[in-house]
Order: sequence, then C-alpha cells, then structure tokens
Amino acid sequence: MDKIPVAVLGATGAVGQRFVQLLADHPWFEISALTGSERTVGGVYREVCRWVLNGDIPPEISEMVVSTTDASLPARIVFSALPNRVARQVEPTLAENGYIVCSNASAFRQEPDVPLIIPEVNSDHLALLEQQRGNRGWPGLLVTSPNCTATGLVMTLKPLHDAFGVAQVFATTLQAVSGAGYPGVPYLDIIENIIPDIHGEAEKIQDETRLLLGRMDAGQRVAGDMELSVQTNRVPVFDGHTVNMTIKFDRPPSPEEAVKALSGFRGPDPVPGLPSAPAQPVLVRSEPNRPQPRRDRDAAAGMAVTVGSIQPCPILDLRMVSVVHNTLRGAASGSILNAELLVAEGYAKN
Amino acid sequence: MDKIPVAVLGATGAVGQRFVQLLADHPWFEISALTGSERTVGGVYREVCRWVLNGDIPPEISEMVVSTTDASLPARIVFSALPNRVARQVEPTLAENGYIVCSNASAFRQEPDVPLIIPEVNSDHLALLEQQRGNRGWPGLLVTSPNCTATGLVMTLKPLHDAFGVAQVFATTLQAVSGAGYPGVPYLDIIENIIPDIHGEAEKIQDETRLLLGRMDAGQRVAGDMELSVQTNRVPVFDGHTVNMTIKFDRPPSPEEAVKALSGFRGPDPVPGLPSAPAQPVLVRSEPNRPQPRRDRDAAAGMAVTVGSIQPCPILDLRMVSVVHNTLRGAASGSILNAELLVAEGYAKN
Amino acid sequence: MDKIPVAVLGATGAVGQRFVQLLADHPWFEISALTGSERTVGGVYREVCRWVLNGDIPPEISEMVVSTTDASLPARIVFSALPNRVARQVEPTLAENGYIVCSNASAFRQEPDVPLIIPEVNSDHLALLEQQRGNRGWPGLLVTSPNCTATGLVMTLKPLHDAFGVAQVFATTLQAVSGAGYPGVPYLDIIENIIPDIHGEAEKIQDETRLLLGRMDAGQRVAGDMELSVQTNRVPVFDGHTVNMTIKFDRPPSPEEAVKALSGFRGPDPVPGLPSAPAQPVLVRSEPNRPQPRRDRDAAAGMAVTVGSIQPCPILDLRMVSVVHNTLRGAASGSILNAELLVAEGYAKN
Amino acid sequence: MDKIPVAVLGATGAVGQRFVQLLADHPWFEISALTGSERTVGGVYREVCRWVLNGDIPPEISEMVVSTTDASLPARIVFSALPNRVARQVEPTLAENGYIVCSNASAFRQEPDVPLIIPEVNSDHLALLEQQRGNRGWPGLLVTSPNCTATGLVMTLKPLHDAFGVAQVFATTLQAVSGAGYPGVPYLDIIENIIPDIHGEAEKIQDETRLLLGRMDAGQRVAGDMELSVQTNRVPVFDGHTVNMTIKFDRPPSPEEAVKALSGFRGPDPVPGLPSAPAQPVLVRSEPNRPQPRRDRDAAAGMAVTVGSIQPCPILDLRMVSVVHNTLRGAASGSILNAELLVAEGYAKN
Repeated sequence: MDKIPVAVLGATGAVGQRFVQLLADHPWFEISALTGSERTVGGVYREVCRWVLNGDIPPEISEMVVSTTDASLPARIVFSALPNRVARQVEPTLAENGYIVCSNASAFRQEPDVPLIIPEVNSDHLALLEQQRGNRGWPGLLVTSPNCTATGLVMTLKPLHDAFGVAQVFATTLQAVSGAGYPGVPYLDIIENIIPDIHGEAEKIQDETRLLLGRMDAGQRVAGDMELSVQTNRVPVFDGHTVNMTIKFDRPPSPEEAVKALSGFRGPDPVPGLPSAPAQPVLVRSEPNRPQPRRDRDAAAGMAVTVGSIQPCPILDLRMVSVVHNTLRGAASGSILNAELLVAEGYAKN
Repeated sequence: MDKIPVAVLGATGAVGQRFVQLLADHPWFEISALTGSERTVGGVYREVCRWVLNGDIPPEISEMVVSTTDASLPARIVFSALPNRVARQVEPTLAENGYIVCSNASAFRQEPDVPLIIPEVNSDHLALLEQQRGNRGWPGLLVTSPNCTATGLVMTLKPLHDAFGVAQVFATTLQAVSGAGYPGVPYLDIIENIIPDIHGEAEKIQDETRLLLGRMDAGQRVAGDMELSVQTNRVPVFDGHTVNMTIKFDRPPSPEEAVKALSGFRGPDPVPGLPSAPAQPVLVRSEPNRPQPRRDRDAAAGMAVTVGSIQPCPILDLRMVSVVHNTLRGAASGSILNAELLVAEGYAKN
Repeated sequence: MDKIPVAVLGATGAVGQRFVQLLADHPWFEISALTGSERTVGGVYREVCRWVLNGDIPPEISEMVVSTTDASLPARIVFSALPNRVARQVEPTLAENGYIVCSNASAFRQEPDVPLIIPEVNSDHLALLEQQRGNRGWPGLLVTSPNCTATGLVMTLKPLHDAFGVAQVFATTLQAVSGAGYPGVPYLDIIENIIPDIHGEAEKIQDETRLLLGRMDAGQRVAGDMELSVQTNRVPVFDGHTVNMTIKFDRPPSPEEAVKALSGFRGPDPVPGLPSAPAQPVLVRSEPNRPQPRRDRDAAAGMAVTVGSIQPCPILDLRMVSVVHNTLRGAASGSILNAELLVAEGYAKN
Repeated sequence: MDKIPVAVLGATGAVGQRFVQLLADHPWFEISALTGSERTVGGVYREVCRWVLNGDIPPEISEMVVSTTDASLPARIVFSALPNRVARQVEPTLAENGYIVCSNASAFRQEPDVPLIIPEVNSDHLALLEQQRGNRGWPGLLVTSPNCTATGLVMTLKPLHDAFGVAQVFATTLQAVSGAGYPGVPYLDIIENIIPDIHGEAEKIQDETRLLLGRMDAGQRVAGDMELSVQTNRVPVFDGHTVNMTIKFDRPPSPEEAVKALSGFRGPDPVPGLPSAPAQPVLVRSEPNRPQPRRDRDAAAGMAVTVGSIQPCPILDLRMVSVVHNTLRGAASGSILNAELLVAEGYAKN
C-alpha cells in the first residue's frame, strides 16, 4: 500500500527527534511535514534542530523545511510532541480539521472522551472515540499515550490485574534524565545525586494508571479502583525508568504464578501483528539484580517492559522491579504504536 | 585529660580510612595502632594503604606501621572496620582481653546481649552490657553500630515513633556506591544505571530497624513490632543513602506535626554534649525536591539526617524522604559517637 | 579594623554564589549589598536565588534584598560576577564613581591599562593602575582576574618560567562542567561523554597566559613571547580543571629541578600574608596518576594548584599535569585575593 | 561456503564477550569453542560468564561449555582475548599446532616477525608472515591487532601521512573506562574525575604508531620515523577513546586538504569488500564540538574513526580531534577484520 503521510508536531524537541528517527524507516508511515516553534519555522530541519540523539538525522529528513503547526499540514496522521500549553490549543483544532492526532502531550489525557491508550493493555478504550465524535463533532480524532512512568507501571500491573486482581500498590520511581526533555536537567544538579519528588508527577502516574486499568461499561470508561501510592525520584540515568513496587492482590499469586502471568501476557488482536509491537510485551528476568535501566531498556527495540526481582513482600503480597524505555515505549514509539492500531482498526480511512 | 589510646582494625579499607581521618583530630581519642591484613602488616601505612578519600592521609598517621589484629594492641578502645568473617573471630577475643570494641561490622549486630546503638535513639540499650558481662565473662565489651541505611531510616522514624507510634513502613532505598566498600562497584556496572535488590540488604535493614526501635524491659531488649517492607537499590551516587518511605501511624500526625517532632528531636543526656554529636540530629528541609544526597549528606559534618518532601500518602498516612551520610553517620562517625557515649557513661575506666 | 563593605554584582549566578559563600566569613570584608538582574531586584536573596552550591546560603546573607547594579551601592569594593555584556557597560561606570572593581568577567581583561592579576604571579602589574588613572580619570579602579584555565596553567608555568625560561607549550585542557556556569551543560550532553573545542576558549587561554607571564617595562606591560598551543575539552567533572602540557625551555631542567622550582614557589610580599593566600601556591604530588581533579581540587581550600606526573617529553623537554579549582582559585577566590592585595597595597583607602 | 570454525580464547572477559557478540552472526565464521580460566573450564558459558555488555548472550552460544586453551580446539582460527601473561605462553603453542591466531593481546605486538595490522592501514605488513614462518617453522601463524588508542590515532594519521608526510605529533588521549577491562576502574575512583598518566600506555601508543605507519622494505618492516609525544588520561566515559592532537607535516595541508584526504581514505583491495570493513574508514564531521565519544563511537557499527575540530595550530600545522570505539574497532572487531583479511588473502586454507 502507499505509505500514509504523517506530520511530527514539535519536531525539534527531544521527543520530536525520536519521532523523526523512528518514522524515517516506518513500513506504513512517511514523514510529510515537520513543525516547530516560531524560532524554527522556515528553517531547514538540519540547521534549526540541535540533534541530541546518538547517530545522525535521517538524511532524507534533514533537508526538510520546518512549517507552522496549523491545519494546512499535508498529512493524514499527526504525532504531537508539543508542550502542553500549545497542545491544549492546537490538538483540538487539528482534529476539528480532520486530522488523526496521536498525542504524547498530557493536555487531554484525563478527558473522559479522549482515549488514553497502551495497545496491549486497553485497545478496547478506543470505543470512547464514538463518544468523542458525538460530543465534539470532529471529523478527525484525538488519541493520547500515557506518561512514560505510568506506561511501565501499567504494563507490569495489567497481566497481574487480569489474573489476580490488583488491590493496592506502593511504587517508588527512579526516573531517567531524558524524561525531563532537552536541555532538561543540568549536570550540576544531577551528577552523583538524586532529586526526589518530581513536581506533579506522582499524581499524574496515579491517575493515569487507574484510567489505563479501567474497563469500558456501556461506552463509558470506568477507572480502576485499586489504591496507589507513588513516590518519584529523578536519578542520574540517561534513558530508562525503573519502578520498585509492592502489590496487594485480591487473589495473591506465588512469585512463579506472577512470572507466568507476566511472561505470557499478549495484547489482543490486532496488536501483536502491528509493525512496532514487540513479540512479548513483558519480559521477566530471573537473574539477581535485574532489571537494570542501562542493560534492559533496549529490549525489543525499547518496546518491551522488563520485570524482575519478584519476591514475597513482608507486608503485602509481592514485590518486584520494572524497567521501561521512557522515550521509546514511554513516548514516541508508544504513540506510533497507537497510530498503527488506529490504522489497523480502520480509523485512518478517509 | 589525657587522650585515650585507640586502635583502628582494618585500617586500610574504605571505612578504616574514614576512622583514621576522623580520629586524627579527635579531642578525646588518639590513634595508637592500625591493623591490617597479612599483606599489609609490617608496612608503613602511607605505603600499604591505597587512600581513597579526598584530601591526604593525616601526616601524623601516615608513617605508622600496620600491626596484626591481636590482643597485644596498645589501646583501650578498638574501632572495628573488619570484614564480617574476620570480625566474627577477632572481636570476641579482643573483648575477652579487656578491650572496648566498637564495631562497624554486622557479625554480632543481632546477638541478644550485644547492644546495637545509635546514641540519640537507644542509648538505654547499653544496659544489655550487664547481660553481656554475665553471659560471657568479658572484662572488655562489644558494642555495634547499625547498617548504614538502617541508621538513616531509624533516625527518621524514632522521633515519629515516640510521638505518634509507627505501625507500618514501606521504604525504598537509593544507596550510594561507597556503601559497597572499595573497590566496590565497577564504573562499567553503575554508570547511568540502577542495580536493584542489593543482596541480603532488605532483611538486614528490616531486622536492625526493629531492634533499634525496641525497648528495654527488665534488662532484655524487646524488638519493635512495626511492620516493615524495604526494597533496595544501588544508585550512581558517591556518598549518601536516600530513603523514600510511607508510614502508617497509630496516631496519624499532620505534616506540620511530623516536622515539629523531627526538628525537635534531641538525644537523651549525655548524648547532646558528646564531641561528635550534631546539635540537631534530624534536619527538616521545606524546599521542594529535598533532601538530595549530594547537597545534604554533609549536614552537621555528616552527622545529621535530613528529611523533606513530607506529605500525605494516598493509602497510609505520611510520605517523606530522608538522606544520611552512609560512611560518616552510617559508619565510622557513628561508631566513634558510640565510643564517646561509652566513655561518658563510664565504661572506659579501668 | 572595621570590615570594608563590599558588594557582589550578579550575586544570584553560580560565581556570584561562590562570592557570597566565601565573603560571609571574611576577616577584612563584609557584604553590604547584593545585585541581580531585573527579575531578582527587590527580592529577598534566599527567595530569588536558586542556590546551587553544597551547603546552605549563609544565614546572615539569606535575608538581604537584591538591589540594582548602579552607583548607589553602599560599598567600597565591588566583586563582579556579571555576564560580559553587562560587565562591559557597568564596570567602567562603577570605577568612574569611585568604586574599586574586582572583576571576574572577561570584558576588560585584555585592555592595556587594566591589570589582569594573579597575586603570586604578577602583583607588579598593579603599576598599570597609574596608567589607568591617567587614561580614564577614574577615582576608582578596575582590576581583573583571569580565565579559570589560564589561572591553573600560568601558576604552573610561572615558577618554571622564572627559573628556566618557558619557550614553547602544548597544552590540552580537560575542563569541569562548573566552568560553564549554571544551568550550563545538560546532563544529556555530557554524561559519559567529552565535548571538544570549547568555543573561543583556546584563544582566551593563550592570550591571557602571555599577558600574565609578561613583564613591566617603563610602566607598560610587555606580554610574554612564549609559543602556546592549547586544545580544550569539556569533561564530566563537577569542579576542577586539568591541564596536560609539554614544555620546551630555554634552559631545560631535570624533572627534579622542576619539582624544586614548583614546590619552592612563593608570591612576593605582601602576598603570602594575605588572608586567602595559600601557604604554598603550587603543590607537587609524586604518586603516580596524580593530580586528579576530584582528589586535588580542594587543596589549600581550593587556592593551591597541584602538579604531578612530571616526566621527560620525547620531543620537547618536560611533560606534566596540573589541576586548579576553577570556581575557587580560578574565579571567586582569585578575585577576593586580588582585592586583598589592593587593600594591602593601600589602594582601598579613601 | 561452509563457515570457518573459530574459537574465542578468554571468552568470559570483557573483550572475549565482545568477540562472542560479534561472531554470533558472522557471515564467514562460526564459534566452535570458547576457552576460559581454570575457574570456568567445564562450566556452561551462560553460568560462568558475568555478561557485562548490553543485551543478552547470543542464545546459540550461551549453552556452550567452556574448554581449556590448548591445542585440541576444534577450530581453524582462534581469537585471543587472553591476558598478556597467558598469551605469551599459549599463542605460540597454538600457532605451532597449526592454528591461525588473531590476537588482541600486546604480548607479541612488537616482535619483528609478527604482523601488527590494521587492514586499511598496513595490510602489506602481512608479508612478514613469510619471515615468521621462516624463523619459527610454524604451520599456523600469529597476527596481532594494536592497542585501542593507537588504532584511532593511526587511522587518523595514515591518510594524512600518505598525502602530506607526518613529521611530528603531540597527542593527548581521553580514554574510556572499558579500555581497562572488567571489573576495571571502580566508580569511586573515576566518577566526576580524571586519572592522568595511565601506566605504560604512552610508550605503547608511541611505539605501535610508528610500527603501523612503517613501510615494508625487502621483506622487513621499517618503522616510521615521525616524532611522537603522547600524554594519556582515563576519563569517565563508557566506550570511545578521544585523542586531541596537533601535527607538523612535511608538506603542510590546509584544513580543507586534510578533510579531503581523511574523507577519501580507503583501504587497499581486498579490504573494502571484507564483511566487517566500514564503507568509509574515517568520517569527518564539520559541526563544532565534534567528534564526541558517546555520539560518534558507534559510527559504522563502531568500525569508523570520526575526526573533527580540524583547524590551524599556532605552533605546528594542524590540530584535530579523533574518536575511535575502543572495544570494537580498537579490539574485538579489529581482530575479526584481521581474520577476514587473512581469509581473503588465502592464509586460512589448509
């Protein structure tokens, strides 16, 4: 088939660059536009973008001219790596103008008629789009992907929740520096240091986790009712968010049963066949001292979550540790997987 | 008064070096002997010790000759920075030969007749020494200081426990590399990485915390009965252990009441007057994103624990973060403070 | 004597904070004013200053109100930590209004009638102030301190130049992140990385080195004529600039003769008696693999340069390595030492 | 063709692991044996090898049993990642027993009849093998690959030497931690620190550079006669050695001419067609502040050297900076490329 033309909104930022890197070789999509802030509009991407990823700007993209983020974009799908303030204004306008908006911004994640999606976890929440169309009358649509840390937490909890019922979770996050964007955290602040209590982050993770683990009931999303307490920390790691958690279940499993549920987890059709979907969304490592962000973040091209150190908790039922690649599965790749799901489900047809 | 002659056992290791650095200028103690392993015995300290601390070996110590760890040491008090295996054999022998042994090793920390002491927290546990003398018939004595992470956790919990009753604690540790000794953790393992689930550490912290928060009853130590669940992580920080914790209380305080209890905490007499005792054992910082190990570990010469980010927990009562200097308060300085307490309480008289 | 009132210009930046920290306990000076940018003027220092140094803001300073940088400052001496652009406008105005300006900015370092001073190296260049007064008619005066890397290089070369004549130097710098100010270099750019060729830095180091090693002739400064080639690198080090260098001499010394010249170096009177002057400006370490920035930067409160790894060069005469604390000797402390010299030489009298 | 059976000697160390990782998918070679030290012999690779690379042990290798390093290895080519002491004994024995030994050890690098090879640079030095056979009577042969830093330096100098004649080089190295093997450098020694003057390294680099840039004359290798002065530093970088250098030429080029010579450099036939050979051995980056080890080490799968910051030197002719991946091009991949060259040149036939 012909590739679908897509635009990257906010293409010069750190997440925007990830979109560019990932979409350069995508089997279904092809970049037709890059947008940027006032400072960069009209400039050649290679010249106005301070490329922070390893490797080079894909050569076929580097000479593209940056355009403004408006309704004249020559694209069917737009990937939004916009700052929240801008996303709040621009994303509805684009959906109103017929674009399929896959957003990585948090602006609309908590709206009742905007699906917040991890395909393997809750692709059925796409049913909210009917409500979205009804409420807003958009010819296009808006789908969001979750906070990077919530992504890792939820992908770990989902298989356990399905099998054993998650009742209560205490989680402590150790979040990589790239989660704060670029330039983000100064070396002088974070080298051989920990910065606790990232502003507003715990609430976001708690709320989004309950949405993602919620179920659809008569076309409405009913949030999960598990209890969650999250403490957050910024740590001197480049990429890869680590979460330590301890969990109380309705039907407590043994560590072995938990391993089986995690390893056996697969997304519903058509998710496993999507181009960016990992063969196994959750990997379990049995060695001691794993998972580790630097050694496990790149599993399955950064699309698999790795879980390990699973053991009984002296107070609740089970403790474990999980690692997710925050700028791949937890950001750009996650949004692209959402777009692939929308295409596979027929939402991208004209 | 004349200074009391003291020996440092295992003086060439990382903790041994801290003892040397701290004792070089001590108002009550003076180093009369340094011991080392077979490889270093007979050598000049400066030559056989690979000094890993910043600054230089104190000049008056650098030319001392390293001796064997045996009962001929010209000292009244001995500070043990021995590996556990060696400590298990040597420390009782020394106590049997009349030495006052202040040990930083974990070998005897859990023995019912060996005081495990943080002076501000449980100086009354020294009463176990009577039992120790009765059981073992030693003319000397053996007192231990706790695990470095337990030290920070307990100093945070103690004021809260006294005021509000600690019933349940979930804690996640972010432990500095120096906690693993020297050479310890390779750069290749820990740079921009997290290593979860330090072997055996969670159990040690849980057990020692209950001992330290225990009470004396008819000459016996009764461990605290709070529930504890600890998850541990090694993080790329040089010095300073950070603990994220959430706490359930018998009588839940507001954050302000917790701050008041923590800030107002003082050790019992004669602890506040000891040379190494900080004026205020627990500092509370009200700024966001504090405490941080690099910025707070050196508070009060590394002897104060710093607590911050105190806020309500959505499941239990209060969440907070605490930082302790693991090789000062949590190791060498802690043992020295114990020795000062023993002197002040009259145990060092002949 | 009464302390001399001093102002810190640009007090909220990284170097400004160092001035505040160092002047809080100074025996001769007392802070009477802090200035800041428009954003901070009128605010309480504690509230408008994002303190990046370890430890706390000195309590007696933290409640001061930040004022504008103008000629109404209640001070005799002003320490400038201003950005160059601002320094270029403000510093002459202040000198014109009678202030003694000790500047850490580079704006006027290369002016022929503005002394660029390291007291131990070229206190005689203060004679340029006569020319400055003649040219500019200022009742006050302006003295500058050099680039942080040039400081370490020159303090290493000066004793060797006096004794053996430095003819040619190839130097490669490994510069700490704090040299780029705050927020400065993002973690994402510098962690486990090297950034070569710092913009404009090599030229500055080469030019200032020749000025500092120049001599006074009939009231004029004649720059040194040694050949210099400098390559620069930013490295993941917090504080402390390292320089690798190889040197050709007019009268080549042995390594031992070089050690003797370096260790024996002392500044001319009255420099050694100034409050901030180190007892020995250049320390030589004989161990292998020294000096190292983290282990040697704090020598003599960050005021001594440490040199080591001195050995024959297969092409020129001698190779060696030198470390300087870039924000102490190489910035704030260096300017304060200059001010002390001005006071001792009688320039601060009314 | 059938794949050639190869053995990895010292397969459990850091370089040995790189060999395993790279050979797992090699088009010409297939791993038939892994050898290890006494401690690991007889064990399953997966169990006795502490895998330090990112990613997993290749599954088809992980269950192999580690064997002793002796003449019963079922292999035609052996890759040696042995420690020098062991290499000195074992490598000649293996060559004597008919094996083709491609060694990464330094034991025999300076022997006059042992080729020290970078295929693009001096494949003609393989002619020394005739001398080797004559001298030693081995049915097999021994070829070595150079020191990791020398590799980067020589690949930068070779195109320039061919075109303009390199007369003199001052080089300062900033070497990654992985160059010291595993466990190698402790975090406590190198974090935010620099360790200058790596023991014995400067001499090795100087000597090997002259050998590699030497020419064959009547079957003998004549070392290059350029003057070299190298200063070395260990820096907190994971992989990737950076070299700052300044060069004097017989026929000084402009920066542009140097860029052209570097970019246009290609190895002689059959090197460009070998499976592991990069399309362009030396890449030139024109952006400021490049090359950087973290951003450039992986260029061409770690096989290309990247050069940048090329500019006039105030004393000699040109300064520049070069980065090489020390454990790929500078170690395991370099040896594999040597083996490919030997195969292509017909040395691997029976």
